[in-house]
Amino acid sequence: MQTTRSPLARPFPDMPAIAGVSLRVARARYKQWDRCDLTFAELAEGTAAAGVFTQSACASSEVELGREAVKQGRARALIVNAGNSNAFTGWRGRAAVDAIRAQVCAALACGVDEVFVSSTGVIGVPLPIDKAEAGIAAALQAEPCGWEDAANAIGTTDTFPKGAGASAMIGDTRVELAGIIKGSGMIAPDMATMLGYIFTDADVAPAFLQEALERANAATFSCITVDGDTSTSDTVMAFATGKAGNARIDSWDSPGADAFAAALADVCRNLAQLVVRDGEGAVKFITIRVSGAASDASARTVGLSIANSPLVKTAIAGEDANWGRVVMAVGKAGEPADRDRLSIAFGGVWAARDGLPVDDYDEAPVAAHLKGEDIDIAVDLGLGDGRATVWTCDLTHGYIAINADYRS
Amino acid sequence: MQTTRSPLARPFPDMPAIAGVSLRVARARYKQWDRCDLTFAELAEGTAAAGVFTQSACASSEVELGREAVKQGRARALIVNAGNSNAFTGWRGRAAVDAIRAQVCAALACGVDEVFVSSTGVIGVPLPIDKAEAGIAAALQAEPCGWEDAANAIGTTDTFPKGAGASAMIGDTRVELAGIIKGSGMIAPDMATMLGYIFTDADVAPAFLQEALERANAATFSCITVDGDTSTSDTVMAFATGKAGNARIDSWDSPGADAFAAALADVCRNLAQLVVRDGEGAVKFITIRVSGAASDASARTVGLSIANSPLVKTAIAGEDANWGRVVMAVGKAGEPADRDRLSIAFGGVWAARDGLPVDDYDEAPVAAHLKGEDIDIAVDLGLGDGRATVWTCDLTHGYIAINADYRS
Repeated sequence: MQTTRSPLARPFPDMPAIAGVSLRVARARYKQWDRCDLTFAELAEGTAAAGVFTQSACASSEVELGREAVKQGRARALIVNAGNSNAFTGWRGRAAVDAIRAQVCAALACGVDEVFVSSTGVIGVPLPIDKAEAGIAAALQAEPCGWEDAANAIGTTDTFPKGAGASAMIGDTRVELAGIIKGSGMIAPDMATMLGYIFTDADVAPAFLQEALERANAATFSCITVDGDTSTSDTVMAFATGKAGNARIDSWDSPGADAFAAALADVCRNLAQLVVRDGEGAVKFITIRVSGAASDASARTVGLSIANSPLVKTAIAGEDANWGRVVMAVGKAGEPADRDRLSIAFGGVWAARDGLPVDDYDEAPVAAHLKGEDIDIAVDLGLGDGRATVWTCDLTHGYIAINADYRS
Repeated sequence: MQTTRSPLARPFPDMPAIAGVSLRVARARYKQWDRCDLTFAELAEGTAAAGVFTQSACASSEVELGREAVKQGRARALIVNAGNSNAFTGWRGRAAVDAIRAQVCAALACGVDEVFVSSTGVIGVPLPIDKAEAGIAAALQAEPCGWEDAANAIGTTDTFPKGAGASAMIGDTRVELAGIIKGSGMIAPDMATMLGYIFTDADVAPAFLQEALERANAATFSCITVDGDTSTSDTVMAFATGKAGNARIDSWDSPGADAFAAALADVCRNLAQLVVRDGEGAVKFITIRVSGAASDASARTVGLSIANSPLVKTAIAGEDANWGRVVMAVGKAGEPADRDRLSIAFGGVWAARDGLPVDDYDEAPVAAHLKGEDIDIAVDLGLGDGRATVWTCDLTHGYIAINADYRS
């Protein structure tokens, strides 16, 4: 964890324990620090697993193996290493992941494909096997811990621990969901992002869990950006232990399927927004609502073009209602747009309508809105019914300061 | 012009007058300033014209009309307004361009399609017709000026005037080329970029001039980026007056065609690099050479992914040889790449080879290289013969400072 807490931070929420999930943390000392940096989540037998992973062509062995293993849909353990991403480390990196999985398989008497490993931190340094093995041995001996301890242990440049919970009724059975996430820079998910884990005691078939996670991901993690940079290790996984005893959900026709999917999406949206709130150097949380696009996908692309524009982000940092830069970002998005139908609002006040500055545009309420912490930008393309909401943060001196001397 | 000159600035070169081109500047006072902000280039009858323009879906009327007019391949005048881009101003903006063209047509007794207008500056404020008309009237009365005056007059946030010249032998005839350009932010050309103008006394057929300009553009302006933001007004034009009296070039088979195209590309490359050298907040000039890609186009995409990565750019600002961020940027580019064949060098020293950190990698010479002003990054993808060179600058506190309060 960095020393200065983000001004956009949120308190860690109360989240119930999830039956079938046991959390432990340990010190593997992947870096020169005295903090827990290895997280071990033991999962009950029969736990369903689902995951979405980075589309980076330079993904780590952790991602490659996880992407393959999740196809069989079962999990008994999740191990998260913080301080070293083990990405771009070739066969040495692969050997470290194999060693970790073998050690955990032996301890839990489970299959290798039921053990998922994630690593996050510096790229290009092979994960030291001796430290990993000692860390896992320590974790196996440790007392169980709570969500906040685990959320802290998976963090790197994060300035606050991030979690979100929800519950849903499936028939008469209440099921609980709890998620933790890390991430604050190198955030521009395409299919998935960062390291995020959602646990539930619901009984859910793996295929449905995967479908619900992908659907939630598309509207949440895939709609945030901090800096347009996509990590080599992005991973979001969901684990369902089945301990709640609900009637099993195996399709959208199952009773409670919609309620469960909504709760899952709710947790994902909260976690995604927390990552933006910890965006490196961020002091403003920006919501960009795009409507009137040719399609939902087109709306998302336009929204991300605005959200990734350094000129838009610095304008917000400067509390400047420079909507001309929003026009620029719409124009460069490569999506259908008609200059003369475009409308733009800040904080609910339309600055431009149908391709023209609004005649009696009053910048005073907009200026007041921009002085706040939560900034709202609305863009209507005037073409169709496509819509999307995207979240990002401003671009400040803090981002430069954090990233000009991260590795050293 | 901004007050603080870029540390990467270059002196304005000596460039000869081009026969058939007469330059004048005037004060239209598009902003509250006392400087020349209207540039008028009068071109001899029969001048051939070529142009490449932004692909923004929100392009200005200037761009739309210029794109259409250049098809007939002739020009008698170029007018450049600085301080107001006239983009996103609907019919009012269009009316201003029409008025300017009508005024110039009357003065020169030429066709409306032979008058090209560019405007650069704030988006969303209609260009004031009265100021434009008074400015043109003043320019028509003014004494001819030199290249440096014109280069200053077209600038906005530029910190130094930018020009480049070249000459070529066509048979026994020496022809001259002179170019000026403006731009330092909102720089991420796709087909064209910024405002750049190249003048030559060579006799060149319009179709060939267009082809040579497009070819030069692809390897120069389309290979630079400052911030990944693409302007609504990007324009690069070439004008050939034919006054040198060379045997006319009308195809690649014409004597001197290659020499002329090489000189044109040389001017374009110099102008493009000058824009990067004036990148907002830049203190390092970065050359990224990508080889071993599946194709040249793929190499360019990978190069721009690296060049646009804020994490790579801030690492260079911090003089940190963080090649892991280069791996990240290659991975997210969406182009063919194989993690285990990727090699990366800084300043000619390979840090990673074939997907693994180099065993005896000595960071000392790399650290020394990064302390310099000109940074060289080489990436070999190990897949094919595709190659490209891309130029960019670092991302510093200066960029944030300039852009958080530009409009106000």
